[in-house]
Amino acid sequence: MAINLKMPLSEDLLSISGIKLATLSAGLKNKDSKDLMLMVFDEGARVSGTFTQNKFCAAPVLVSKKHLESTSSIKALIVNTGSANAGTGQKGIEDAEAICQALSSALKVSPDKILPFSTGIIMTPLPVEEIKKAIPNLVKGLKENNWLDAAEAIMTTDTIPKAASKSLLIQDQKVKITGISKGAGMIHPNMATMLAFISTDANISDEMLQKLNKEITDLTFNCISVDGDSSTNDSFIIATSNRSKHSKIVKKDSDYETLKKAIFEISLELAQAIIRDGEGASKFITIEVLGGNSSAECKKVGMSIAKSPLVKTAFFASDPNLGRILAAIGNSNIKDLNTSLIDIYINEILFANNGSIATDFDEIKIQKEMNNSEINLKVNLNNGIHKSKVWTTDLSYEYIKINAEYRT
Amino acid sequence: MAINLKMPLSEDLLSISGIKLATLSAGLKNKDSKDLMLMVFDEGARVSGTFTQNKFCAAPVLVSKKHLESTSSIKALIVNTGSANAGTGQKGIEDAEAICQALSSALKVSPDKILPFSTGIIMTPLPVEEIKKAIPNLVKGLKENNWLDAAEAIMTTDTIPKAASKSLLIQDQKVKITGISKGAGMIHPNMATMLAFISTDANISDEMLQKLNKEITDLTFNCISVDGDSSTNDSFIIATSNRSKHSKIVKKDSDYETLKKAIFEISLELAQAIIRDGEGASKFITIEVLGGNSSAECKKVGMSIAKSPLVKTAFFASDPNLGRILAAIGNSNIKDLNTSLIDIYINEILFANNGSIATDFDEIKIQKEMNNSEINLKVNLNNGIHKSKVWTTDLSYEYIKINAEYRT
Repeated sequence: MAINLKMPLSEDLLSISGIKLATLSAGLKNKDSKDLMLMVFDEGARVSGTFTQNKFCAAPVLVSKKHLESTSSIKALIVNTGSANAGTGQKGIEDAEAICQALSSALKVSPDKILPFSTGIIMTPLPVEEIKKAIPNLVKGLKENNWLDAAEAIMTTDTIPKAASKSLLIQDQKVKITGISKGAGMIHPNMATMLAFISTDANISDEMLQKLNKEITDLTFNCISVDGDSSTNDSFIIATSNRSKHSKIVKKDSDYETLKKAIFEISLELAQAIIRDGEGASKFITIEVLGGNSSAECKKVGMSIAKSPLVKTAFFASDPNLGRILAAIGNSNIKDLNTSLIDIYINEILFANNGSIATDFDEIKIQKEMNNSEINLKVNLNNGIHKSKVWTTDLSYEYIKINAEYRT
Repeated sequence: MAINLKMPLSEDLLSISGIKLATLSAGLKNKDSKDLMLMVFDEGARVSGTFTQNKFCAAPVLVSKKHLESTSSIKALIVNTGSANAGTGQKGIEDAEAICQALSSALKVSPDKILPFSTGIIMTPLPVEEIKKAIPNLVKGLKENNWLDAAEAIMTTDTIPKAASKSLLIQDQKVKITGISKGAGMIHPNMATMLAFISTDANISDEMLQKLNKEITDLTFNCISVDGDSSTNDSFIIATSNRSKHSKIVKKDSDYETLKKAIFEISLELAQAIIRDGEGASKFITIEVLGGNSSAECKKVGMSIAKSPLVKTAFFASDPNLGRILAAIGNSNIKDLNTSLIDIYINEILFANNGSIATDFDEIKIQKEMNNSEINLKVNLNNGIHKSKVWTTDLSYEYIKINAEYRT
């Protein structure tokens, strides 16, 4: 079902020195599937996070944010599937803290050095006792070479685990990056959660790690959409063990840019993997908007197209009813939009010129392009020098089926 | 297919003195169905309009707005189906003006006293010659008692014509109101257009007519959503022949309020009819948000729920996966949202209390209520004294089918 997305191979996923992982099945969903993942950091590691903007954010998000505000010197993070522990009120917060407390005893660290994450159904209580019972065995299973298992353990309705890895040189020293992600709230909305954890051994200051997290989120995980719904639990974490031998990155120099580029590539691959595995998705659509007054403006136009059910159903049917794209751009609510300047291309074929039908518009040719599983939609606002890219899917029967029938 | 929506009866639709209508089939869609509607006003009539906020607004919208800016003393309006004349550039504007020109000759009035409307596929040229050819016959068919035909002639993918009528007394003088509407861009988005025309013989000043139009739009046609897409052609017109014998309404007095209430009721019925006839819709959902700091805030929360594909698919399946409603509220982007105060009810049964699961939450009971075709969702923000209502539908397989396959 996933669009051009391959199963990651364990041997391709690099271990990160100073970071260990464990998984197991605590029976939170069913007996056979892994549903708990633990990531433990050696001394010296630092963690940065970006979290959902949804005001109904889940209890574990509130607890993780609080813990990260008091220190970036985090010792462990734990992820459960099954319950999102959202819409659970004060009890939910106490439950998330109880998990941190239980894990802190097992790991012999302060509970505020632990970040809890949950993904699953909203308004369902966290099965605290089951998780607490599983913690001793979970801790026993910790090992560095365990990324594929970790990617599997955080899956909910994902059909394929999502993991990516690469290495690079900074000051001639090897730096490794490995990351995992799971279905976006915007794509796998039953589960209401997009989670992504990127780990590296790069040596970087707290301040620069934070900056890097924000810059990368804006260009990757904040640029994907399936249905416009942002979830109660979305979280993006970058952790580093700081073990690489290069001198610490403390400012936005070329080393920072080199590292950012590499983490960006991994993040983009993981963000796109979420889209490629979107429930019911049959097409992977890249929307590039250029010629805007700012990249924020371009992103707004791109997201307006990405969120339009009309555009998405047209792509599902490979129906060149492309006026819907014009309408979506018109709805993007940006200032000074000059509709008479806009050009639009599908896979480099111009179909709208100066805001109306291109004179050589060829419906058959466009329809053929729309039959592809990979589609590039390019919008030139011809009104500035900035640009942005977002990624989305079509909207299919299957999406309705999965979202209407998940709990029944 | 339409949810609890009856075919209007011709005898229930009151003629409005001083307003005549004609329809015919000009072969714009197929040979058998009416596709042109003409409404002609006697001397003394006044017209007010509210139009789409979409920046890619259609050529007829641009022309109608221009004509209405120069005078509210409009002589006629003409509606074609088949082509929306949107995304058609300068040529589209010339085409819309050509229709006004042709009609102005037939009616012997200035072309800027004519308002053109189009509804149909975007980026398709207007069949100007066919329309021009049909005008002489169209004009011949004008008569007062013709509202049901008019409602039929503006239909596109609607399954039932939408019309409503009522009379009232102002200063002991009879005042009549009759209105028609057709599928919303937000519901019948292929056709990308919601059109509504309300006519009355109430005697009211231009300024008050404008005010009334705006106040009513905000409470009716701007409170409905199926998929969040607002169209290139949406228009809401209130016309009056000014023939009723009561003295002219020139300020916001009790007569103004009496008339507003009556026109509001007709408008609401027509707006709700659009939702009830929503493509693929199986449920009519009223979302009432109260306890907000302003009615605008309440409407924002209501619309965020109404637009959420997750909430809508849950309603389609009668699945009490109600955390999705919390998530949609959390996404509504209003300031000072205190999630721990929020109560939510389905058909008066409390399911979320203080922002989390109600202690007596009964899934079976809620599921039973969700099986109804009429659902009331009530959200109390418990944070102020204002409220708002919006209306929407569920999101079904059928919606995808209709929108994916319309042109094929």
